[in-house]
Amino acid sequence: MTSFSGVYPYLVSPVTDGGQIDKPVLTALVEHLIASGVHGLTPLGSTGEFAYLSAEQRTEIVKTVVEAARGRVPVIAGVAATTIQDAVAQTARYVALGVDGILAILEAYFPVPEQGVEDYFRAIATAAGKLPVVLYTNPQFQRSDLSLPVIERLSYVENINYIKDASTNTGRLLSIIERTQGRMQVFAASAHIPACVMLIGGVGWMAGPACIVPKQSLALYEAARQGDWTKAMALQRPLWRINEIFARYSIAGCIKAALQLQGFEVGDPLPPQVPLNQAARQEIAEVLRSVGAL
Amino acid sequence: MTSFSGVYPYLVSPVTDGGQIDKPVLTALVEHLIASGVHGLTPLGSTGEFAYLSAEQRTEIVKTVVEAARGRVPVIAGVAATTIQDAVAQTARYVALGVDGILAILEAYFPVPEQGVEDYFRAIATAAGKLPVVLYTNPQFQRSDLSLPVIERLSYVENINYIKDASTNTGRLLSIIERTQGRMQVFAASAHIPACVMLIGGVGWMAGPACIVPKQSLALYEAARQGDWTKAMALQRPLWRINEIFARYSIAGCIKAALQLQGFEVGDPLPPQVPLNQAARQEIAEVLRSVGAL
Amino acid sequence: MTSFSGVYPYLVSPVTDGGQIDKPVLTALVEHLIASGVHGLTPLGSTGEFAYLSAEQRTEIVKTVVEAARGRVPVIAGVAATTIQDAVAQTARYVALGVDGILAILEAYFPVPEQGVEDYFRAIATAAGKLPVVLYTNPQFQRSDLSLPVIERLSYVENINYIKDASTNTGRLLSIIERTQGRMQVFAASAHIPACVMLIGGVGWMAGPACIVPKQSLALYEAARQGDWTKAMALQRPLWRINEIFARYSIAGCIKAALQLQGFEVGDPLPPQVPLNQAARQEIAEVLRSVGAL
Amino acid sequence: MTSFSGVYPYLVSPVTDGGQIDKPVLTALVEHLIASGVHGLTPLGSTGEFAYLSAEQRTEIVKTVVEAARGRVPVIAGVAATTIQDAVAQTARYVALGVDGILAILEAYFPVPEQGVEDYFRAIATAAGKLPVVLYTNPQFQRSDLSLPVIERLSYVENINYIKDASTNTGRLLSIIERTQGRMQVFAASAHIPACVMLIGGVGWMAGPACIVPKQSLALYEAARQGDWTKAMALQRPLWRINEIFARYSIAGCIKAALQLQGFEVGDPLPPQVPLNQAARQEIAEVLRSVGAL
Repeated sequence: MTSFSGVYPYLVSPVTDGGQIDKPVLTALVEHLIASGVHGLTPLGSTGEFAYLSAEQRTEIVKTVVEAARGRVPVIAGVAATTIQDAVAQTARYVALGVDGILAILEAYFPVPEQGVEDYFRAIATAAGKLPVVLYTNPQFQRSDLSLPVIERLSYVENINYIKDASTNTGRLLSIIERTQGRMQVFAASAHIPACVMLIGGVGWMAGPACIVPKQSLALYEAARQGDWTKAMALQRPLWRINEIFARYSIAGCIKAALQLQGFEVGDPLPPQVPLNQAARQEIAEVLRSVGAL
Repeated sequence: MTSFSGVYPYLVSPVTDGGQIDKPVLTALVEHLIASGVHGLTPLGSTGEFAYLSAEQRTEIVKTVVEAARGRVPVIAGVAATTIQDAVAQTARYVALGVDGILAILEAYFPVPEQGVEDYFRAIATAAGKLPVVLYTNPQFQRSDLSLPVIERLSYVENINYIKDASTNTGRLLSIIERTQGRMQVFAASAHIPACVMLIGGVGWMAGPACIVPKQSLALYEAARQGDWTKAMALQRPLWRINEIFARYSIAGCIKAALQLQGFEVGDPLPPQVPLNQAARQEIAEVLRSVGAL
Repeated sequence: MTSFSGVYPYLVSPVTDGGQIDKPVLTALVEHLIASGVHGLTPLGSTGEFAYLSAEQRTEIVKTVVEAARGRVPVIAGVAATTIQDAVAQTARYVALGVDGILAILEAYFPVPEQGVEDYFRAIATAAGKLPVVLYTNPQFQRSDLSLPVIERLSYVENINYIKDASTNTGRLLSIIERTQGRMQVFAASAHIPACVMLIGGVGWMAGPACIVPKQSLALYEAARQGDWTKAMALQRPLWRINEIFARYSIAGCIKAALQLQGFEVGDPLPPQVPLNQAARQEIAEVLRSVGAL
Repeated sequence: MTSFSGVYPYLVSPVTDGGQIDKPVLTALVEHLIASGVHGLTPLGSTGEFAYLSAEQRTEIVKTVVEAARGRVPVIAGVAATTIQDAVAQTARYVALGVDGILAILEAYFPVPEQGVEDYFRAIATAAGKLPVVLYTNPQFQRSDLSLPVIERLSYVENINYIKDASTNTGRLLSIIERTQGRMQVFAASAHIPACVMLIGGVGWMAGPACIVPKQSLALYEAARQGDWTKAMALQRPLWRINEIFARYSIAGCIKAALQLQGFEVGDPLPPQVPLNQAARQEIAEVLRSVGAL
């Protein structure tokens, strides 16, 4: 089984005015990120605006990324649904397309009881067969989420080996690490300080900002991995502004605007989201410049 | 244009183990409710578990209800989506099936800016053509919701004539009524006291409980409509226990359990929701008995 | 035992720059309200800014109001504390000053367990001796609050006879009325529609707005009390704007600004609260004019 | 001006049944902590239950701690109030008693506007004269809190040099450090992982758990200060259970129970808080044993 670690950018989803996936742009972005040295790619995370794409569009995104990656780095595709049936169908489709792992997200409109949450993630793991599953958890953003006891129980499922936590609560990550004793590896999201997550035993991060500062992210990851914490913090400090700005504006809107500034014509965020205004774009440009990413 | 008022039960969605809509059971429920005198029917509201149904299942539900109603009462179908495109497609399908109105619900996974919320509802109204649209608003349950200024602006759209508010804040209803000056009629949800909503100028209620106490709901509505507030409150008091129990348990689970007790084999709530336990079923049975509905 | 019902304005607390209670202004306000026909007076509610007054200032407020009222209407003084000891001491002081009842408020900095909440209110009731106690509950504003089961248990305490609910959830009031079967009378706060609360069996309202529209409040109360709901709603509709504006601005700031416009030199809200800006004052003036209160 | 860094235990407040401060017990605890090597002492933080103590009791606590410390380590006393006037009076009293710094806490019953929050902390700084002030911030617990822009403005006040952040959001600490450029030193609270806070540039922690595991806390601090992050994390991992248990139970209740187990008769948490049950005490005992603190 593939072992995942390192920097996994959350990819944006470029869609043309006619509703088609812009394959050339997405392929160019994948090429650029692999050339920058990222360890893997994650289409259809929150930055990928899964909630605003049809089943066909999602499939096309995954297909495009798998083909563009050509096996050079693992592709972990996001599965997000309100029902077990839909989640299982998505998983099966992406497995058939040749992904290397599944990022499992629960979309809840109504509150879901704990047993229902656990059932949902177990069903995805079964559908993923031999592929590893990354649980997605966000206690502050989702209506129903993974509690520590449920995470602990799920850590005993053979192919549920990773968790990506998108809360701002770094202590929760240490609680997960301590409870699961190596059965569950932790990836950070953009709301955590990557250097801190690496210090406590995390294996990397899956996040939108890595899309726009891949080289800087990799340098930070390498310093942390080698235990050079002084260098890691020196690299971390200026990069934190990227995460701060990401938290201030709509997730996909911010990354899409930054990528446009960097020459990737990924388009605007998908409706009913609205594009960033000019002031926000200038602020993003200024921050990118401050870290040498523009 | 049809004018809507009165008691509109939110219908449950009976689904067989094989994932088919149970048309005989749904048809029998429609027949029973029309025979009980309800003023209209609302499939695919929250009680209808829209979030757990595929597009095909949703279409089948609407088709079944329209056919069963045979034009005797208006059918207002729930449209719920995260994207404008999907919402417009659903609306077009239900209009083609012969519904009399659309209940418009925004499902938001990510927070949606106010302009995006307004765009979403305007697009549904356009897609509904000449049919009236009922806005659905729930400031406590939804991640992004209709603010008073947006509601006021939408009240000027020709076929946006109704709003169903599912908050517990009855004062918000009066604020809507006062701001829209007759352009927007208000329906209550189960979290409001129907007698109070009628007193302040509401035109009725759209809610799950009306599915299980239709005759009692109609008696209350009639008393309120005729301005016999003493009688209305005498009928209202015992009925409030139905709303209380509905708030305590998962929405669809409660109504499905009650309907089973009344002899309608509507099945369990759809996964990842879980069935009510025995204690909850007994409590529901006891409350139904207390109002003569069992 | 005195029976409370009707319109009880929450009084503001006028304090001079030197930190003294402005007794002439407070006395004039009391005189004006009694002349307007209010049924009682409530010093040291939230509009009375209890959190910004010392023990001495609070005592002086109560003393002034009791003396100014001269027994013409009941005075119900607000007791608010984080500890049982302090609450009991305040209660004893106000009882000694001759108040007719106690409004009991729990100030919680840390979350308080349910048993602690119940203990707190029981201790105040004991300290109040033969005087009636009004519980104050606000599930949306307070960190620890009265649950329905605790309210039900407290309703069996001989002199806990009233509850003032400051949530926006009118259905909660009906749940309280139905559970306590006459042992607990309900007063509304400004977040509820008074006409609705009267319809479901409430006995009046305790609220800041009654300070600035006493005559209008009394006309509404009378219409509701006599069961003339058509007239009650005709009076209620324009008055709702007062409650809306009260919700938009800081509580005491709004009422103090309105009273200044009406000629009562009650001063600004107490620091660290800040005075309303000019635009807010103009909006308040306009709303007062719209209901004939300026 | 004294420079603060290291481990500052939040002290509990032992009160006898008669309401007197238990000076012998508090003195013994101070002696024990200083003997254990702590860098300073913080009476009247949240663990010190300030909300449940009278002005006289608070003064007695500070006096006892200052006398017991005999200048061996700095004493930073907590000032907590709803009004500027009360906060200034407390500050003056504690300065007169010989404290070395002030921990400034805003107790808000009503929401306070940003300008009022800033005024409050500036007034305390002025009253503290030449003594350093530590701001207390907790965006998740307090009703009104310090925003990043207000913190940045306050960092220019000459004697506001420290901030203790009690949120769980470790990224917020890095944002504060980056914005204030050395003008504001950061202490962690128990909701953060101390090793992480040290890594990003924090100067120590002020927290209740340091009261019950002082030696373990100091070893961790020393390893982190010397940049031995491998050792720091080896010490951190088992200690995190202490913080977890502290989050699960009421703050003071947990620390008082642990101290009783360690032989300090500090009594129960103050009413309306309630003592921990037997199961919780056993869980605390087990966790203490797991880190060699019992």
